[in-house]
Amino acid sequence: MTKQNFAIIGLGRFGGSICETLASAGAEVLVIDKDEARINDYKNIATQAVIADAQDENTLKELGIRNFDHVVIAIGEDIQASILVTLMVKELGVKYVTAKAQNEYHARVLTKLGVDKVIHPERDMGIRIGRNLISKNMLDYLDLSSDIKVAEIRITSRNFVDKSLESLNFRNKYSLNVIAIRREKKVEIAPQAAMALKLGDSLLVVGRKKDVENFDKLMEQ
Amino acid sequence: MTKQNFAIIGLGRFGGSICETLASAGAEVLVIDKDEARINDYKNIATQAVIADAQDENTLKELGIRNFDHVVIAIGEDIQASILVTLMVKELGVKYVTAKAQNEYHARVLTKLGVDKVIHPERDMGIRIGRNLISKNMLDYLDLSSDIKVAEIRITSRNFVDKSLESLNFRNKYSLNVIAIRREKKVEIAPQAAMALKLGDSLLVVGRKKDVENFDKLMEQ
Ligand SMILES: Nc1ncnc2c1ncn2[C@@H]1O[C@H](COP(=O)(O)OP(=O)(O)OP(=O)(O)O)[C@@H](O)[C@H]1O
Ligand SMILES: Nc1ncnc2c1ncn2[C@@H]1O[C@H](COP(=O)(O)OP(=O)(O)OP(=O)(O)O)[C@@H](O)[C@H]1O
Ligand SMILES: [Ca+2]
Ligand SMILES: [Ca+2]
Ligand SMILES: [Ca+2]
Ligand SMILES: [Ca+2]
Repeated sequence: MTKQNFAIIGLGRFGGSICETLASAGAEVLVIDKDEARINDYKNIATQAVIADAQDENTLKELGIRNFDHVVIAIGEDIQASILVTLMVKELGVKYVTAKAQNEYHARVLTKLGVDKVIHPERDMGIRIGRNLISKNMLDYLDLSSDIKVAEIRITSRNFVDKSLESLNFRNKYSLNVIAIRREKKVEIAPQAAMALKLGDSLLVVGRKKDVENFDKLMEQ
Repeated sequence: MTKQNFAIIGLGRFGGSICETLASAGAEVLVIDKDEARINDYKNIATQAVIADAQDENTLKELGIRNFDHVVIAIGEDIQASILVTLMVKELGVKYVTAKAQNEYHARVLTKLGVDKVIHPERDMGIRIGRNLISKNMLDYLDLSSDIKVAEIRITSRNFVDKSLESLNFRNKYSLNVIAIRREKKVEIAPQAAMALKLGDSLLVVGRKKDVENFDKLMEQ
């Protein structure tokens, strides 16, 4: 397999972090930003770093943007630039394009232009943090569907301490599957049913939203 | 249990999304922004919406900020304002403070000032998107520890089609636990060992990073 190659346009916090993640996984990364200071920050991390306004179609052509497997458009505040660059990148024939959206209208335009994945970094992180604030014992990890989720719930109720999943008849009683138990720094995957729970252990569970929330509420008792 | 109450200072995308999440969960939410347009956007969502510069200590006192369970400081570009407001909020005695950081230095100052949870929304979402771009069959969900992760891997290799987890001797052969199987819109939690896999099914697995990555690589064959 040849190395995957990526182009990232816009090195704000979001684009910059994508650049670091891809480069540290060994991918080829071209970065483009019109701000020289940003390019200087990433020139030793990326494979190639170019100071340019990505709205200039000749620049995109000269850089051979059409030959990249994926292009990420991480321009933020300048929505007009984001849209124009997206249009050109798609017209030049790039297969897979990911773009950051500032709001719902921006997202709709990007989708119409053929963007494969539209991302709302701040909004999605806000949802996540909001959910974690609502329930401090619950780390709300992911919605597998509109009805099923994975979450991590800290055992803060003495009603569960020194009991095992088996003695609690856990799966039947709470309708949840325990995927892992975190105790201090250690994570036990596929934990023994006979293992006694301690205060402060966290259970990583999968189940229906309602069941996850009901179990979390028991921690307040 | 009385309703939890939250104050959010700064209604950018991140702060605004936290406001919506908390309000839709039924929490009491006070929002403060110096920009009238932002306050207008959220005045029907939040319990109370105030146009003010949060750097004004009298405003914070008059709003009774010390009586809030949690305060979220979601000021972005104006790092100086973020730091000053954090200082005042902590000095007024708020127990639990979450704050957005723009960079590593900002984060260190916030931590020294006593912020309980420092968030880097764009950076963290960039890491996540970067990982997903590296492996398009793998949705990289969460690191349970430095060594163990949960990920969703799409079955794209014909070597797995029409085989069951049982016939594949899945757990022993790949050292992974299957938490759920996604087939089209349906998610099967605690799937039957005899269920035959189809092309395009996704397996939600938990295991050591190396084992998750090795299994993901098999999808390229
Ligand atoms: N036309 C353009 N050509 C090249 N780079 C651009 C262009 N327009 C904006 N950029 C760059 O994109 C980067 C991100 O833009 P901006 O700072 O507006 O986004 P942001 O949403 O605030 O970013 P973040 O929230 O991820 O930090 C900046 O470094 C900016 O210089
Ligand atoms: N001193 C202040 N008092 C009240 N509100 C403030 C203050 N400083 C900034 N804000 C508000 O905070 C909000 C977020 O700030 P800003 O837009 O700089 O952050 P951002 O990081 O770009 O946000 P995001 O990336 O989440 O959209 C803005 O609505 C701004 O009006
Ligand atoms: Ca910016
Ligand atoms: Ca910004
Ligand atoms: Ca902004
Ligand atoms: Ca931002």
